[in-house]
Amino acid sequence: MPSLSLRINLDPEGRIGPGKIELLEQIAAHGSISAGARHMNMSYKHAWDLVEEMNQLFGKPVLSAQKGGRRGGGATLTGTGLALVTRFRAIERAAMAAAEPHIAALQAEIGTS
Amino acid sequence: MPSLSLRINLDPEGRIGPGKIELLEQIAAHGSISAGARHMNMSYKHAWDLVEEMNQLFGKPVLSAQKGGRRGGGATLTGTGLALVTRFRAIERAAMAAAEPHIAALQAEIGTS
Repeated sequence: MPSLSLRINLDPEGRIGPGKIELLEQIAAHGSISAGARHMNMSYKHAWDLVEEMNQLFGKPVLSAQKGGRRGGGATLTGTGLALVTRFRAIERAAMAAAEPHIAALQAEIGTS
Repeated sequence: MPSLSLRINLDPEGRIGPGKIELLEQIAAHGSISAGARHMNMSYKHAWDLVEEMNQLFGKPVLSAQKGGRRGGGATLTGTGLALVTRFRAIERAAMAAAEPHIAALQAEIGTS
């Protein structure tokens, strides 16, 4: 079954797609940028660049550093980061549900697998 | 206002997004691959490669060559090409309409412009 992948184009130039959103989810799940990046087979530098890009795009941080403590150097999502992840997933679900009958029709018409 | 851009992922590997769809629309509007490519500031070779990629993906041609005639070398959409364009645009409209309230909410929550 064909699936949709979806990007949100923000003014003036930014784009938010499944890669950035999954990165935030992985960081939230594993507690740090480095662990999140590792779970996506992504370099720390690339993960950091993507996070910075989101910070710039929204003019506020998507992560909050957790200093000190036994593990040190952890990160959690800010309210902005959390809103971004949850809304993106909601947008995706709504878009897929709405698109599904048309995708099925396309499939029937042109026989994609 | 943020907008969505949307790709359809087909098994096993293909992707159909706004670029390929607009190319088919421009070819249909202007009557040939070369004229369609020109209206998108795209090289003829790149346009041809994209058309070939779609032909392979669906296992049938998206364009039908118009031989002879005064202008010669024209192309029109096949039924497959037309179904693809119209369904893609319908999928896009349905997805955007469904996503719109969530995009507005995201915008309100994190203040993107």
